[in-house]
Amino acid sequence: MDLLKERIIADGRVLGTDILKVDGFLNHQIDVELIQEIGREIHRLYKDCGVNKILTIEASGIAIACFTAQFFHVPVLFAKKNRSANIPNDVYSVRVSSFTHKKSYDVIVSKRYIGPEDRILIIDDFLAEGNALEGLIRLIQDAGAEVVGAAIAIEKAFQPGGERIRQKGVRVESLARIASMSETEGIRFLP
Amino acid sequence: MDLLKERIIADGRVLGTDILKVDGFLNHQIDVELIQEIGREIHRLYKDCGVNKILTIEASGIAIACFTAQFFHVPVLFAKKNRSANIPNDVYSVRVSSFTHKKSYDVIVSKRYIGPEDRILIIDDFLAEGNALEGLIRLIQDAGAEVVGAAIAIEKAFQPGGERIRQKGVRVESLARIASMSETEGIRFLP
Repeated sequence: MDLLKERIIADGRVLGTDILKVDGFLNHQIDVELIQEIGREIHRLYKDCGVNKILTIEASGIAIACFTAQFFHVPVLFAKKNRSANIPNDVYSVRVSSFTHKKSYDVIVSKRYIGPEDRILIIDDFLAEGNALEGLIRLIQDAGAEVVGAAIAIEKAFQPGGERIRQKGVRVESLARIASMSETEGIRFLP
Repeated sequence: MDLLKERIIADGRVLGTDILKVDGFLNHQIDVELIQEIGREIHRLYKDCGVNKILTIEASGIAIACFTAQFFHVPVLFAKKNRSANIPNDVYSVRVSSFTHKKSYDVIVSKRYIGPEDRILIIDDFLAEGNALEGLIRLIQDAGAEVVGAAIAIEKAFQPGGERIRQKGVRVESLARIASMSETEGIRFLP
């Protein structure tokens, strides 16, 4: 998606070879018009797939999920990061390791809001190691629902998550796929 | 706002005299059409106030803030809850005590995205004790920006936050103000 790639080039900041800061328009300050266009593009990709619910994870996925859901006319469900030692028994829960934050946390969704009747599109802002996305896929499967696919704003395609999840047969669409990046040479996208 | 009040009556669940669960449509699963209407109403209330940015706090406020921002055509900034011991020096930071979760946390926003040129509308899903809202007000003031007012979906008007903040001269508009609630007698709204 050219609009997103151009914005990443213009306003993204690369730190080292691994960190891309896009907090000016995507995951701290939110450029609403841009995210609307991202939602429109995700809808174009998945509009014929019978999606009846969108699942994301707090907090950075919520804006993209909401603007996408406007086009699908379906509800958004956002998984929560459980920070207490106890997990309530009315939720589906999965343990996720965060590569960025070097720790693990439990991701939960209420059993009230997901079930075998659901055909779910997963949305997130970033895909890198793929642990969060794999966790969401497992949650959906635990609930007996169907994973239609995943839509990601920015994929670090030089990290293994996207490839590993696609090899499992899950459709993953990323709007900007970064082949490599560095402070000196900038950002290169996959075609 | 009648649409919201009707939905709270239909789908909200009161636990004890203090907890209102609205996770079926507001802060876990999100009814996108409802939140769009909430955004439209908030815009009606504040449209002539020169708002150029919307500030909320992760995670439950993000959806309402985004749908409201569509009507204003302004960016959303969502404050983050800092969970590490260290606070970076490029953020404004304020300590907030959470009544619900019985603990304190730091709320931060990047200094890049807020400054004296900003006229800010604060949005959140709930107002009860008012600690989070007061924290956001202080962050805005620390940045030298102006607080235009606050828009809240549901105010527990039997708790002191709303009254205390209004007495300081901040405009606070809540779309559903709960006078009292209990498991046996249900929910009563202020007129």
